[in-house]
Amino acid sequence: MSNTKVGIPKGTRDFGPAEMLKRTFILDTIKKVFQKFGFLPLETPSIERLDVLTGKYGEEGDQLIFKILNSGDYLKDIQQKDLDEGYKKMTPKISKKALRYDLTVPFARYVAMNRSNLSLPFKRYQIQPVWRGDRPQKGRYQEFYQCDADVVGTNSLLCEAEVVLMMQEVLGQLGIEDYTIKINNRKILSGLAEVIGTSFSAQSLFIALDKLDKIGLDKVLEELYERGFTSEQGEKLKGLIEKMDSLDSLISEFEGKTEVGMTGIQELKEVWSLLSAFQAKNQNFQEKLVFDLTLARGLTYYTGAIFEIKVNNVQIGSISGGGRYDDLTSNFGFPDVSGVGFSFGVDRIYDVMEALDIFPKGQQTTTQVMFTAFDEESLKYALPILQKFREEGIRSEIFPDYKKKLGKQFNYANAKGIPFVIVIGSEERQKNLLSIKDMEAGSQEQLSTKEVLAKLKIT
Amino acid sequence: MSNTKVGIPKGTRDFGPAEMLKRTFILDTIKKVFQKFGFLPLETPSIERLDVLTGKYGEEGDQLIFKILNSGDYLKDIQQKDLDEGYKKMTPKISKKALRYDLTVPFARYVAMNRSNLSLPFKRYQIQPVWRGDRPQKGRYQEFYQCDADVVGTNSLLCEAEVVLMMQEVLGQLGIEDYTIKINNRKILSGLAEVIGTSFSAQSLFIALDKLDKIGLDKVLEELYERGFTSEQGEKLKGLIEKMDSLDSLISEFEGKTEVGMTGIQELKEVWSLLSAFQAKNQNFQEKLVFDLTLARGLTYYTGAIFEIKVNNVQIGSISGGGRYDDLTSNFGFPDVSGVGFSFGVDRIYDVMEALDIFPKGQQTTTQVMFTAFDEESLKYALPILQKFREEGIRSEIFPDYKKKLGKQFNYANAKGIPFVIVIGSEERQKNLLSIKDMEAGSQEQLSTKEVLAKLKIT
Repeated sequence: MSNTKVGIPKGTRDFGPAEMLKRTFILDTIKKVFQKFGFLPLETPSIERLDVLTGKYGEEGDQLIFKILNSGDYLKDIQQKDLDEGYKKMTPKISKKALRYDLTVPFARYVAMNRSNLSLPFKRYQIQPVWRGDRPQKGRYQEFYQCDADVVGTNSLLCEAEVVLMMQEVLGQLGIEDYTIKINNRKILSGLAEVIGTSFSAQSLFIALDKLDKIGLDKVLEELYERGFTSEQGEKLKGLIEKMDSLDSLISEFEGKTEVGMTGIQELKEVWSLLSAFQAKNQNFQEKLVFDLTLARGLTYYTGAIFEIKVNNVQIGSISGGGRYDDLTSNFGFPDVSGVGFSFGVDRIYDVMEALDIFPKGQQTTTQVMFTAFDEESLKYALPILQKFREEGIRSEIFPDYKKKLGKQFNYANAKGIPFVIVIGSEERQKNLLSIKDMEAGSQEQLSTKEVLAKLKIT
Repeated sequence: MSNTKVGIPKGTRDFGPAEMLKRTFILDTIKKVFQKFGFLPLETPSIERLDVLTGKYGEEGDQLIFKILNSGDYLKDIQQKDLDEGYKKMTPKISKKALRYDLTVPFARYVAMNRSNLSLPFKRYQIQPVWRGDRPQKGRYQEFYQCDADVVGTNSLLCEAEVVLMMQEVLGQLGIEDYTIKINNRKILSGLAEVIGTSFSAQSLFIALDKLDKIGLDKVLEELYERGFTSEQGEKLKGLIEKMDSLDSLISEFEGKTEVGMTGIQELKEVWSLLSAFQAKNQNFQEKLVFDLTLARGLTYYTGAIFEIKVNNVQIGSISGGGRYDDLTSNFGFPDVSGVGFSFGVDRIYDVMEALDIFPKGQQTTTQVMFTAFDEESLKYALPILQKFREEGIRSEIFPDYKKKLGKQFNYANAKGIPFVIVIGSEERQKNLLSIKDMEAGSQEQLSTKEVLAKLKIT
């Protein structure tokens, strides 16, 4: 065995207990909401066939996929001429498998493989890590979790409305209140390009538009003029963007000029109408939903609604995004599968909750009470009571080195954030009681086992 | 984008919703018990530095580690002479990272890296997948979950006793009743070798012994005779094995002959005594615990107690194992860290539960009720009620293509295993009621929203 210097690869992280409990709080909240809306769990292997992943994420994406070396003598058939051809041609010769890059392609592969057994619409959620060879930097990791929910095999706009409901319920339960759900529609973007008319590709227009938030309208226009935009086109775009917060005012611009654009508007209006149908009492599911003509993510696959959530007053990218697609699985020989999917960014949600300081308190540990013991007698007295506590569902532990000084035992409980500590001396044994110390308050009282149990069950 | 034939790598698996719900049941049960005993969660990266993993699992293990190709032009500095040196020397030149092979080495690395911040004893559990390039076969996968719990930084035998308690609680909660927890102690094995005396390494004796279960005593002795065992040694071993089910009878054989062996016996007796101290009422924590002199797993790292669980009457290997070690982290520059750890084999537990048919019924889905709708009117009537159900915590969905025939909607509910379906016709709307169909019983009744909620909350 070698003596190794200790470290982990750049862009990866250990999650110790305190972080794990916070992350679990986020993930459990998301899971519960997904299930409440009828989504069921799916897990796919971390390792996919390289040919399944290659070509799905563009050339840059292909480079960022982590490839796994074939087992055994992978150089067996490799010769000098293979070396000369360079690493890109070498890769498929020495690697047949790779790490999952996102959850969408594995999901598409799963749907295509199981098409004959799946009853559509298929509603699944998937919460697993993905891996990307990106240059690590603050907030960008080589291994991170994605939380996806998709419903495929239906083009009902009810799905879009339910995405908005799920987003609101998750963030509400996490305690994130001040955010905006932006919505747009790919068809509205197409309509925009049609109405303005571009000499270059519509795609380039959308990409420029998507930067509006970051660089402002002037810079966007500058970029477009460089590409060949006329000043007339520029003025038109400016005018449209100024109307962007109202779907209705957009109608007058689109009507009779772009059919696809009008379809996009109608689809969004239907989402609003369905949200309104959902609400009883004095709820307002539309309050945080804002139409954003410049939202243009996922341009290569989204064909209908496009979503994104921004937290207000926290400097961070979007914490959730998604959209409607028309063609999930034709890469895998199963065409015309339409669906809606969206995803939460756990790492960003974590950072937002830290920044806002809204994680539930006292989540440093799950242990509710620790028993101390300092000799054989107190140990033997403690063990059956500890056992009883556990039978009653109380998460409890005993300091294992029961001969160590009480001070050490208390230090351990303190460091671990355990809220109550039980001390058993000769007096307690004689009276058949337990001394229980509230570690936060510093107070201590003598109670019967039954009373301690009752106390722990309500805290 | 290429048109790809669909498949997953050999030795990997997709877990669809039905399997996921069963697996989650197992994992949640294990997690809850770990937490009940004061263990906290840890997650380490899937990717470790190759030099952290290499040399920790023996030469065969090194070969089975999945190595990840370096990002970018990994061939940049590679020449013909590197090719000529063969793949084993090539690997560290083109791969700096690898997939986790087990949870123990990453845990040791974590403890060593965080030694100054951890308050010992440190009790952690870790439930994550690991990867091994083993030849795939029935029950052996290239990606599978491990569920480890370890307590480090203490040599208290209370930890061993609690391992036995946790094993019993997990299996009891899963409904696995007929099993044996085998226990041995590495020091007793050493004592055995001392008492018998071998001309070859004691390790070889233990390895032969460990096969007793599979090949029987005669074959074990045959193997040992081939290695140079004298007939006297053979007879002695036979005699000892016949006494193996009683620690006490072993004392007379060990007393005065092997100090280390006697220490092992005392340690095990203390575990029994602590288990007895734990039990109040008419419990018997010792009932399923059996001393097994031939249990010899983990010989290279276990130094005290050795555990293993066998399910009786199911043909499958052990579903759990573990032991006490004295030196977790010296590989990482942090010597003398003692602890006890054990692990559940989720895949085997899953197979056992399938074989015994003891998974809780009705776990095919988590959705409790599905709303149908067949026109705009029934949809608008349904949505606020659906919303109310969700607010009350009922996991409920609505068939999204609400214009499809009711028969299709029912088929979907059936295939997904949803227990109740709600139908809303003009009669229901007039009477302000819901028709709810029990999909298992086939019966249908008209109830108020409040009555349906009450019904769903108790089922």
